[in-house]
Amino acid sequence: MEENRQIAGKQSLLFSNPPYIQCTACIAGKKEGEGPLGHMIEEINEDPMFGMNTWEEAESKLQALTVNKLLKKANLIPGEIRYIFAGDLLGQLIGTTFGLMDFQIPLFGLYGACSTMGESMALAAMSVNAGYADRVIALASSHYAGAEKQFRYPLEYGNQRPLSATWTVTGCGSLLIGREKSMVRIAGITTGKVVDYGVKDSMNMGACMAPAAADLIYANFMDFNVNETYYDMIITGDLGEVGRTILLELLKDKGYDLSKNHMDCGLEIYDNHTQDTHSGGSGCGCSAVVLCSYILKQLEKNRWKRVLFIPTGAMLSTVSFNEGKSVPGIAHGIILESV
Amino acid sequence: MEENRQIAGKQSLLFSNPPYIQCTACIAGKKEGEGPLGHMIEEINEDPMFGMNTWEEAESKLQALTVNKLLKKANLIPGEIRYIFAGDLLGQLIGTTFGLMDFQIPLFGLYGACSTMGESMALAAMSVNAGYADRVIALASSHYAGAEKQFRYPLEYGNQRPLSATWTVTGCGSLLIGREKSMVRIAGITTGKVVDYGVKDSMNMGACMAPAAADLIYANFMDFNVNETYYDMIITGDLGEVGRTILLELLKDKGYDLSKNHMDCGLEIYDNHTQDTHSGGSGCGCSAVVLCSYILKQLEKNRWKRVLFIPTGAMLSTVSFNEGKSVPGIAHGIILESV
Repeated sequence: MEENRQIAGKQSLLFSNPPYIQCTACIAGKKEGEGPLGHMIEEINEDPMFGMNTWEEAESKLQALTVNKLLKKANLIPGEIRYIFAGDLLGQLIGTTFGLMDFQIPLFGLYGACSTMGESMALAAMSVNAGYADRVIALASSHYAGAEKQFRYPLEYGNQRPLSATWTVTGCGSLLIGREKSMVRIAGITTGKVVDYGVKDSMNMGACMAPAAADLIYANFMDFNVNETYYDMIITGDLGEVGRTILLELLKDKGYDLSKNHMDCGLEIYDNHTQDTHSGGSGCGCSAVVLCSYILKQLEKNRWKRVLFIPTGAMLSTVSFNEGKSVPGIAHGIILESV
Repeated sequence: MEENRQIAGKQSLLFSNPPYIQCTACIAGKKEGEGPLGHMIEEINEDPMFGMNTWEEAESKLQALTVNKLLKKANLIPGEIRYIFAGDLLGQLIGTTFGLMDFQIPLFGLYGACSTMGESMALAAMSVNAGYADRVIALASSHYAGAEKQFRYPLEYGNQRPLSATWTVTGCGSLLIGREKSMVRIAGITTGKVVDYGVKDSMNMGACMAPAAADLIYANFMDFNVNETYYDMIITGDLGEVGRTILLELLKDKGYDLSKNHMDCGLEIYDNHTQDTHSGGSGCGCSAVVLCSYILKQLEKNRWKRVLFIPTGAMLSTVSFNEGKSVPGIAHGIILESV
């Protein structure tokens, strides 16, 4: 049967009719603009409130501005988009609910913590490849102040952050995924499982997520019968320094050496020496912004031919955390190819 | 092109190869067992803590018990399930994360408030119809005490509830959706948009959700060029008394009379006269439990041939609510047919 060709392995799909990333839009905050990738980020908004009254409204506005930008660039109206697959880090996805409401596009709300950009791209690509849609949007966002308030302490408390802590990116990345040919396509996906190594430190998210990333990469290699050399670059979402070290160790134990072609979005977006961001960037917006500003450009310029892009998420909630539970991780893998 | 046959309208899909609901498993709490559908609910667990120490752990355990039951009934091991599409009402989906972790099945975490059962069934059916999977699980749960703690007041406060308030169902419903023929199939879906009528009362969720349900039903009628008589029954998730009244009014204004074949899961699961549940049942678990215990049985017995099943969600968060925001609604529609 034709359909079974699409099933490459236990956790992966290889698309028979790979969808294309037709257009992107990305907006980030001031601090992200001052980082090493700042000059490549399409739009920097200097106002952390995005003109609104609360951090949550600010994130919603950031999403709305980003989708408006995407539609304008693609010369489309909301009615021409069949689905939005989107999410954020806030409880009950209020960033997304209020941010995307006015577009009146059918919405699949997703929660994969900081892996949400991978989850949204996976489901978006599955929909387009299956012919359910000609054009969909995949999107994820995060906001530094909203995330600190949600997960740790409101900024007003002025608490100190340990060196293992990451800095939540204020940013939103959005992709128009469709059938029309472009320079980058989504060749396949590997869908993650929840992986828990029992780490209980909400200030050390890298350690929580690294095992999930390692598990996902290993599953991808097994499903497609490849190794690290199959990809020009293997890119995780927001492991940071601590998480990257753990990831490389875990995969070394399985016989893979990722030291030469692994990159972590969280380590690219800030310069820790001058920006005091400790272990690196994090949040749904981290991998989303680095994808739109840097990764896709390398693919478009054919500097990279094939990339395994793996947004990584730490399933943290203040409730479960305060009840003494661990912080399990999840990761979603996307195979990007230059055309 | 073949694929475009799948696109029935702007918000709907009609599956070319409709997936089947091969097996179900459902567990609910004591109060649900004492309600009018109690004798039809597969398993009642009298312990609201499900043997655990916190309400959140209780909900996770409820999900785990339900999936174990489903796998046992279907005589399958976790490795034979390709994806789980699942969600709950708690912040950052901790019910699902901790509940499903041990199965090690690739997970798409979803958040659609109480509409989550519809969202999970839609994406599950899309995956099976496209040939991405032979078998997947769609699941949603809620827990009365966990939901009150998350959204309103911890039970220990003993606050009074207004008559417009609904009672969150303690329950989990799960479906095995696949290619193998059974007595009920998923013929198509209609995907919802966020609809906001500006209602700001977290104790009146029915009023928040009714406009989204009306919008979804109207879109379904338009997309398929049908009216209310096309379905033997049109079933909303958890509008309750207040929401049902609004829904019928809104659709009457559009020229449709649903008074004869509309049913609301929230009005079926409890007996307000003896159970003091006010406006009715609610929560992701409400539509999930009524689906597994009552609706699917009517389809299997051919009492109903075609049902439009519409779990309804109120996008409520304590953060947005305390900041004075409204509670927008969303609804996801599933067309169920007896075979």
